[in-house]
Amino acid sequence: MNKKITRAQVAEAAGVSESTVSRALNNSPKISASVRKKVQEMASRMGYFPNRQAVLLTSDKTFRLGLVVRAFHNFSPFTRAYFPRLLDGVIQEAEKHGYSVTIIMDKINDTYKDLNLMVRSREVDGLIFSVTAFEDPRFPKLLENNIPLVLVNNSFEGINCVNCNPYPGMLDAIKHLKSLGHRKIGYIAGDQHYWDGQTRLSAFNEMTNDFDSAMVVTGNFSKTSGYSATEKLFREDEDITAIMTASDRQAMGVLSYCNERGIDVPGELSLIGFDNLGPARDMTPGLTTIQNPVTLLGSDAVSLLLERIEKKEKWKWIERQSQFIMRHSTAKAYK
Amino acid sequence: MNKKITRAQVAEAAGVSESTVSRALNNSPKISASVRKKVQEMASRMGYFPNRQAVLLTSDKTFRLGLVVRAFHNFSPFTRAYFPRLLDGVIQEAEKHGYSVTIIMDKINDTYKDLNLMVRSREVDGLIFSVTAFEDPRFPKLLENNIPLVLVNNSFEGINCVNCNPYPGMLDAIKHLKSLGHRKIGYIAGDQHYWDGQTRLSAFNEMTNDFDSAMVVTGNFSKTSGYSATEKLFREDEDITAIMTASDRQAMGVLSYCNERGIDVPGELSLIGFDNLGPARDMTPGLTTIQNPVTLLGSDAVSLLLERIEKKEKWKWIERQSQFIMRHSTAKAYK
Repeated sequence: MNKKITRAQVAEAAGVSESTVSRALNNSPKISASVRKKVQEMASRMGYFPNRQAVLLTSDKTFRLGLVVRAFHNFSPFTRAYFPRLLDGVIQEAEKHGYSVTIIMDKINDTYKDLNLMVRSREVDGLIFSVTAFEDPRFPKLLENNIPLVLVNNSFEGINCVNCNPYPGMLDAIKHLKSLGHRKIGYIAGDQHYWDGQTRLSAFNEMTNDFDSAMVVTGNFSKTSGYSATEKLFREDEDITAIMTASDRQAMGVLSYCNERGIDVPGELSLIGFDNLGPARDMTPGLTTIQNPVTLLGSDAVSLLLERIEKKEKWKWIERQSQFIMRHSTAKAYK
Repeated sequence: MNKKITRAQVAEAAGVSESTVSRALNNSPKISASVRKKVQEMASRMGYFPNRQAVLLTSDKTFRLGLVVRAFHNFSPFTRAYFPRLLDGVIQEAEKHGYSVTIIMDKINDTYKDLNLMVRSREVDGLIFSVTAFEDPRFPKLLENNIPLVLVNNSFEGINCVNCNPYPGMLDAIKHLKSLGHRKIGYIAGDQHYWDGQTRLSAFNEMTNDFDSAMVVTGNFSKTSGYSATEKLFREDEDITAIMTASDRQAMGVLSYCNERGIDVPGELSLIGFDNLGPARDMTPGLTTIQNPVTLLGSDAVSLLLERIEKKEKWKWIERQSQFIMRHSTAKAYK
């Protein structure tokens, strides 16, 4: 990289003009195949690399998408299965369209990045928000500035979004509990600042009117929260025979509470999680849960974002369906 | 973004030249504080965003690092805990230095990307290779072209690398097995095309001369491989009372073999994994294992890469130490 070859040197060596060099390397139809071949061979032999940033300056695109990831206080985002699974889908779809993916950590040291500026100054062509609260104050401003963006698992008028519909999976889960004779059940809800937390709780409430009792404790999707919510549920009603949670991590918390107290799962308590990401399969017993198609949502988010970037302005959303996954953490109600 | 404000318009409105606008927005010392303030306010009021790609063209840097991730045939890379943990370290360190991270999927559809071209054409300033085989044919070429790069868990003369030294953790693990009275043990080695696989196997071989037997079966880091290697080990010698593996995923395979055959872990078989990534803690019993400080390696890789980019040419490597983590998958030898 020390002795940098210039376009002028390639032009001179090939006996053509500088603009012909550019056209040849961009496969322009304006020049003949033989000239193109000659220039390309010369450029390759001399080790000339057209600066991609210069090319991009003229194309008005960066061919980069930004995946905005939350920076949490107490853990690194990619330790939670949701983010890597989403990233897999985002990368794979972006690759297909010749886009690369840049990770943008949101809210580092409690200062939101000026995402508007990031796009306006052309660091990326658009943004995918992996996690956002309902009332994110930046949405109206981003929308007003016409920044291409997509929300995953959220909803905001005028902004493209991709969501998992919890109803089909939860309906099958609840039918399953009924068929096993459970009459008193508990639900550990997720954080109600998030679309996920709210829709899953609504689904539970709508579907459980005909149980003898269906108690709800609101948590925050974490394992710790699952643990302490279980304590609360049993304190309120020790006859609960089944618990559903809003996340597999909460279910892990339920399980560790039960292990400590000698409560047998599924013998004395049936347990159903939500997400079906990494841990569900590896837990003992294997966790019966509801599949959240996160990788698919990642791919969908890229498709919708590219439509926005290509100026197809219509407001669109994609909804994917959840699915009940039976493993070994549920059994007949023992009382 | 429809009515794009130009530098010329800002210059006219502020009553200065276009180059003064650029200098003001780049905080150049060549102009007075009052002019700078006037121009900055005008640019902000008019909604002018200097094109970052244009700025970068003159700076000779992109402030982007590429994290090269393997595209596997049968699974998405970020489903394996190694990649997200590494990414966490890479992102956090890069953020500190004002760099963003672009994910580069290597070897899509069996064709390697031309990484040389990626850097020469200034898509990224340098590359971090998360997984590479020993004899990756691209290393000499990349080295010759003076491309800034860092290898994680590999080693190649002249290329900066960061590694986990398996010896300290494995030494404590083996002392622990001895103290529990184990005399016949087995080792499930990782893929020998990789530095990790080789060094961990060497460590095992060097440390186990004084056991009655220390049999080795070579696998490939996967759960399936752990399962089938356990079958082989027991077929060779059914008196084995302890197994060490080269990865936690292999250990999961051992555990599922044992669960199927009714072999009690740790009662009849002690088990020690390697990595201490996500699954180890959530398994039942909690897996005794060896900590591979992957997130730290990610941060180290960024530090070394930035040194290379800043033209500190010295060949350097960083070695981090593994550490024995005791949980519940080992017990006294029962025979």
